[in-house]
Amino acid sequence: MFKRLERTKVFRDPLYGYITVDYKLISDLIDSKEVQRLRRIRQLSGVAMVFQTAEHSRFTHSLGAYQMANLVIQNVEGIESLTEYEKILFLCSALLHDIGHGPYSHAFEHVMEASHEEMTSKLILSKATEVNKILSISPNLANDIADVISHSGKFPIIESLVSSQLDVDRMDYLSRDAYFTGAAYGHIDYFRILRSMKLMDGKILVRASGVHSIESYLMSRYHMYFQVYYHPVARSYECILEGIYSRIKDLVKENKKVDASIEAFLNVIKSSDDIESYIELDDAYVNGFIKQLTKSSDPILNKLSNSFQNRKLFNFVELNNDPSKEYLEYVKGLHNDFNKRYFYRESKVSAVAYLHSKTSDINDIKVLLPNGDIKSLDQYSNLIEGLTKSSYKSLERIYFLED
Amino acid sequence: MFKRLERTKVFRDPLYGYITVDYKLISDLIDSKEVQRLRRIRQLSGVAMVFQTAEHSRFTHSLGAYQMANLVIQNVEGIESLTEYEKILFLCSALLHDIGHGPYSHAFEHVMEASHEEMTSKLILSKATEVNKILSISPNLANDIADVISHSGKFPIIESLVSSQLDVDRMDYLSRDAYFTGAAYGHIDYFRILRSMKLMDGKILVRASGVHSIESYLMSRYHMYFQVYYHPVARSYECILEGIYSRIKDLVKENKKVDASIEAFLNVIKSSDDIESYIELDDAYVNGFIKQLTKSSDPILNKLSNSFQNRKLFNFVELNNDPSKEYLEYVKGLHNDFNKRYFYRESKVSAVAYLHSKTSDINDIKVLLPNGDIKSLDQYSNLIEGLTKSSYKSLERIYFLED
Amino acid sequence: MFKRLERTKVFRDPLYGYITVDYKLISDLIDSKEVQRLRRIRQLSGVAMVFQTAEHSRFTHSLGAYQMANLVIQNVEGIESLTEYEKILFLCSALLHDIGHGPYSHAFEHVMEASHEEMTSKLILSKATEVNKILSISPNLANDIADVISHSGKFPIIESLVSSQLDVDRMDYLSRDAYFTGAAYGHIDYFRILRSMKLMDGKILVRASGVHSIESYLMSRYHMYFQVYYHPVARSYECILEGIYSRIKDLVKENKKVDASIEAFLNVIKSSDDIESYIELDDAYVNGFIKQLTKSSDPILNKLSNSFQNRKLFNFVELNNDPSKEYLEYVKGLHNDFNKRYFYRESKVSAVAYLHSKTSDINDIKVLLPNGDIKSLDQYSNLIEGLTKSSYKSLERIYFLED
Amino acid sequence: MFKRLERTKVFRDPLYGYITVDYKLISDLIDSKEVQRLRRIRQLSGVAMVFQTAEHSRFTHSLGAYQMANLVIQNVEGIESLTEYEKILFLCSALLHDIGHGPYSHAFEHVMEASHEEMTSKLILSKATEVNKILSISPNLANDIADVISHSGKFPIIESLVSSQLDVDRMDYLSRDAYFTGAAYGHIDYFRILRSMKLMDGKILVRASGVHSIESYLMSRYHMYFQVYYHPVARSYECILEGIYSRIKDLVKENKKVDASIEAFLNVIKSSDDIESYIELDDAYVNGFIKQLTKSSDPILNKLSNSFQNRKLFNFVELNNDPSKEYLEYVKGLHNDFNKRYFYRESKVSAVAYLHSKTSDINDIKVLLPNGDIKSLDQYSNLIEGLTKSSYKSLERIYFLED
Repeated sequence: MFKRLERTKVFRDPLYGYITVDYKLISDLIDSKEVQRLRRIRQLSGVAMVFQTAEHSRFTHSLGAYQMANLVIQNVEGIESLTEYEKILFLCSALLHDIGHGPYSHAFEHVMEASHEEMTSKLILSKATEVNKILSISPNLANDIADVISHSGKFPIIESLVSSQLDVDRMDYLSRDAYFTGAAYGHIDYFRILRSMKLMDGKILVRASGVHSIESYLMSRYHMYFQVYYHPVARSYECILEGIYSRIKDLVKENKKVDASIEAFLNVIKSSDDIESYIELDDAYVNGFIKQLTKSSDPILNKLSNSFQNRKLFNFVELNNDPSKEYLEYVKGLHNDFNKRYFYRESKVSAVAYLHSKTSDINDIKVLLPNGDIKSLDQYSNLIEGLTKSSYKSLERIYFLED
Repeated sequence: MFKRLERTKVFRDPLYGYITVDYKLISDLIDSKEVQRLRRIRQLSGVAMVFQTAEHSRFTHSLGAYQMANLVIQNVEGIESLTEYEKILFLCSALLHDIGHGPYSHAFEHVMEASHEEMTSKLILSKATEVNKILSISPNLANDIADVISHSGKFPIIESLVSSQLDVDRMDYLSRDAYFTGAAYGHIDYFRILRSMKLMDGKILVRASGVHSIESYLMSRYHMYFQVYYHPVARSYECILEGIYSRIKDLVKENKKVDASIEAFLNVIKSSDDIESYIELDDAYVNGFIKQLTKSSDPILNKLSNSFQNRKLFNFVELNNDPSKEYLEYVKGLHNDFNKRYFYRESKVSAVAYLHSKTSDINDIKVLLPNGDIKSLDQYSNLIEGLTKSSYKSLERIYFLED
Repeated sequence: MFKRLERTKVFRDPLYGYITVDYKLISDLIDSKEVQRLRRIRQLSGVAMVFQTAEHSRFTHSLGAYQMANLVIQNVEGIESLTEYEKILFLCSALLHDIGHGPYSHAFEHVMEASHEEMTSKLILSKATEVNKILSISPNLANDIADVISHSGKFPIIESLVSSQLDVDRMDYLSRDAYFTGAAYGHIDYFRILRSMKLMDGKILVRASGVHSIESYLMSRYHMYFQVYYHPVARSYECILEGIYSRIKDLVKENKKVDASIEAFLNVIKSSDDIESYIELDDAYVNGFIKQLTKSSDPILNKLSNSFQNRKLFNFVELNNDPSKEYLEYVKGLHNDFNKRYFYRESKVSAVAYLHSKTSDINDIKVLLPNGDIKSLDQYSNLIEGLTKSSYKSLERIYFLED
Repeated sequence: MFKRLERTKVFRDPLYGYITVDYKLISDLIDSKEVQRLRRIRQLSGVAMVFQTAEHSRFTHSLGAYQMANLVIQNVEGIESLTEYEKILFLCSALLHDIGHGPYSHAFEHVMEASHEEMTSKLILSKATEVNKILSISPNLANDIADVISHSGKFPIIESLVSSQLDVDRMDYLSRDAYFTGAAYGHIDYFRILRSMKLMDGKILVRASGVHSIESYLMSRYHMYFQVYYHPVARSYECILEGIYSRIKDLVKENKKVDASIEAFLNVIKSSDDIESYIELDDAYVNGFIKQLTKSSDPILNKLSNSFQNRKLFNFVELNNDPSKEYLEYVKGLHNDFNKRYFYRESKVSAVAYLHSKTSDINDIKVLLPNGDIKSLDQYSNLIEGLTKSSYKSLERIYFLED
């Protein structure tokens, strides 16, 4: 039913050797404006300020998640029971799951009314996008993909393969972020994991014999969080961005001019339905107007954009390290309340290696025992059960501009 | 004499594990505006259109070349005879050798009056740059680095280590470009090469026992040229850029307005001495104004910038593959002479694995025999001698816009 | 004081690139009979029956542990305060720590009166060995090395670097065994670990900022235990060996002839002081006499050695998986009490990711906080504290010959 | 027709991740005595004396060649036209192609009347082997495999895939030997090569677009020859073995006793049809009797076996390096004519990166041009044409025992 390419198209990839495309539909989606835009948005935003080689884009991750879906189809027992339509639905969802990300996504969501997941759905469903036009070759495809991505519950297997505790998204990005940062933690044995997964009675299970590879994967993820994704310097960079965005929003509210070309940005803040403007936004766009703002007549934007441009990052204090009262008072007194809105940020991040199945049964990884029984991962593995408590870690920091 | 940091600063790097900085001077240079700017310029420009993961910046390569200089100092026999000043000169030259690159450098040099090497010298010597200010802690340092980079002949050893057939620049970028493209060719045994090099009587020599590692390195370089750097699709991307730049230049000559914010770009075309404008230029800058040009009222800029933005690349014909006369005529007739200036380009690239020492004695790699004699590499190795002829390959292509 | 080689000697190594030798003493030790013998003893004995590429020898690991000691000397802050003698002591101890291993060491220790650590000391101290002769260039060196290896407490820093929870032995073998098995678990970030270690007030500490790399290392070790070292099939292979050794011992006790050339083996069983005989033993020796035993007139040796030779391994039942009573009775009834001595083995292995500091303060890893305080690792890290309990895993199995 | 396993069997492999077995026939062959014997024969014999980690066995290479055949079947265009029988024939031939190798094969062939290829055929065809019994499930299979391995011309496609200039044997061993030696040369882009191969009109062709990957592969092979396989120290080790074998042969001829247990060895020298004895031979066997010979009453065997055992290798002189006349005379005068038979060897090895198609049309790699024409590789590629001459290198050495 779905047209195949005459010859398999391949993309060289340092992680998988090659990414292979057999369907014309997939090839067309990759070539669409909305997917190509991801080339211009970095996967890890400010992390490249610390791990300078982490310059890879959301595009390469999207291709990677798609290829991981390919590998799931080739390797997971029981997946052959899916129909061709379901496989296509899976491949497309994997490829498109991140198209709603804006530039420097985390900071960006602070000023947007819609999350990046919602934007992904909008882009898929909007008649204005190339992606939507391409998907229209099959009547319900666009809607079904949006359903998968918003976890509607209509396609539980595919939803869990695309987004859960163990999905093609995470399996690709952990490996990929490790490769491009040079961090030694994210190496996961994905082939072993795929071979221990099994589709049975409508559920994705993990065989008991493969639990160790899941344990190892969860620890890798955990370490990537604290060593890479939550790195204080990367967060500091985002804090400056948040300051810039807040200031712009405030100026607009007060009907003041922002002296840079940011029409599309303003349109999007006003309405997340302005798809055309949204698609214009990418890292270059943000970097571009911030560079203009380095000459802004507004002293706050001027200061923040110069900090951003010249990497004069916010300083920070780790509250977990018991800083002295005096120092804390000094930090808190650096800026008055008005300036704090832009130059001062309290930040808290936390993670746990695994959420206890009582808290989050829906996300729980299910283990298939040799005797056919099925158990929650934390019921099966003492190690994981222990980690649901002992691995919880929360980092509280204050970021602040210090001249 | 040169101040050391209290604790060695390290940068994680996927190739070397870590890049280490011991001198305050180096740390300051890395933090300078001009070196940081390289974060915003991709090492391989349009190559990422084919090898989508080749998104690494000139910044990571510059750190890499610096680290390779570190490795030379630690591993090459005889280097210990250099003074500390000479070592600092070497490290700085390695770090700074590429700061003169503009965005999409190759295409860019078509409209500039100065090469990127000349721009590097200007940036180092100009009083307006942070780099120059930092280097002024030692009276002649800036001048000496510029001399090294322009091959003045004043510091022959360091010049040859920074730029020759076998230098820290190439040793880093071959490995690095291979790592980030995923191409299988660039893996060079740099540690073996370093250990076979020897500084003797003011010359860098290669021991006969290490010649095989040089042969292998030269073949890697050769294959990287034809498989990666000269890839037809990457070149096609650059052809569009050249078209855009030419059109802008022509409009300016005719005193017509270009409807995009390109002041800094125009300043630089006018005078390569406008350092401040030059430093503003980076990939974001170019991507930014090209995005504006997609709505240009000039039909030529409009068409070209839309091609660029949406990756509708120029088509091409390989003349080496003996295309039919009819097809060639068709291609040549697609555009009239005026349009050809922007939509049609004849391109020729060529490379040889090794230049014969007769043609290029100055670049020749010198081999140290067990008995103490010194021979040119192509006199010593039949393989290399053969390659000076047989490996010569030239690719002629016509690129053209086809609707 | 210690003579240096004219030119650094290097050994190619896939893990470190190169292993470098600067001292003549080390070079001589590597060339000694006792160290060379380790080429003929596989690092992982029966593991190669499951991970077929795990064919690497104890020799390559010994060189690796030596090189890791080199890396400690080059990278750990504070180590420069050791004297040259102490550094030599450290390097020699790392190189020689395993020379006392016999072929298929684990099974072998069942019939020996001395552990492999005791044998290492004997080989170092015995006047009959080349190693001892080489070490005699410095009056106390042999004794001091033996003291380090037997944890006498005389050189606490070096002892802890050579053998503790975090030592050059483990850091090399985890990486190495992962490389040669192809298992994805053992990749440890040893360079990060080395850089976070600090010698202070006579103790090796780990900076708080490096604790995550230690957490990751401990998890890697844990997974290697259960996935590789305790693999049931590898253990099965050792059970056959234990059967063979027991039978030989029993025959000798009864003054019966064993129809194979095993003089050296018998000598060693009689007295672990027969160094000359001990050195004759290696994998080839054991494989050799087992091959002869495949034609033995003793039916028990005949059966066992044929099993060994043709890889007809003992079957096993995992008691953790709750096998049925019937099956257990069947297994226990397969052999009578006499035969059980050779054809039936109850096996229990267990491990925990980290021993609680209350149980094992001596082995505890100490963490240096930013404020200068020192804490036990499990006091500092909740994750590790949790693992001291939750990661405990014990595997009970019955191995048995089943025709 | 051929029975499939209920669940795919996998072997972990560091090169391919996993080696997969779907057919019961293949699984049975792997478990056979003759294939298992290859676990006890090192792939690179004496090379481990130089590259100490090169301890991998012919078994892992045989599995690797089999897996490469799997990859050919999955990736090469046109291969789907082979029948299932032909595919099985291909897989079996790849797996079994090396079972005829003896221990330290190169030296061993000096005293044998049959080459290892002939021994492979004998083992496959002899009723005495397990392999033969397993293959008998299909009437002609054993014969057809022997035909493939002896290049009978009956199955030209499969023959060329199993043994030619570009075959599954070489593609596996270059990668594998590079991985286990740590040499940086053997990394070949096998996936790219497979994708550029095409089965057309009964011939395996390489598309012009993939020729660069073939050029790179040929250079890798060439460098592996001179850096690894022909390494002088590895050859020296083999020279001692050749001396030992010659001496044994001479003693036997003179009806003198050899004081070691070498019945099987003697049987095999007498008749290469003594399959049962042949299968007994492995590295352990040879190492075992050499150890016994270190106490031999024959002074020649005594000296040689002690050299072998204690790695006191023959010295050598490279004739290519123009040694002085005096030194050569000294070397030649060290031993009288009788002793030279055992203690002195003239050795010559040579290789070329590619044999000219005029000399060896049968081995030539054929290139498929875009227009459908087919050319010999050296006609198509100037580089290769040049290498047929310039890469020829011959090394002449004299090896000799020097006390």
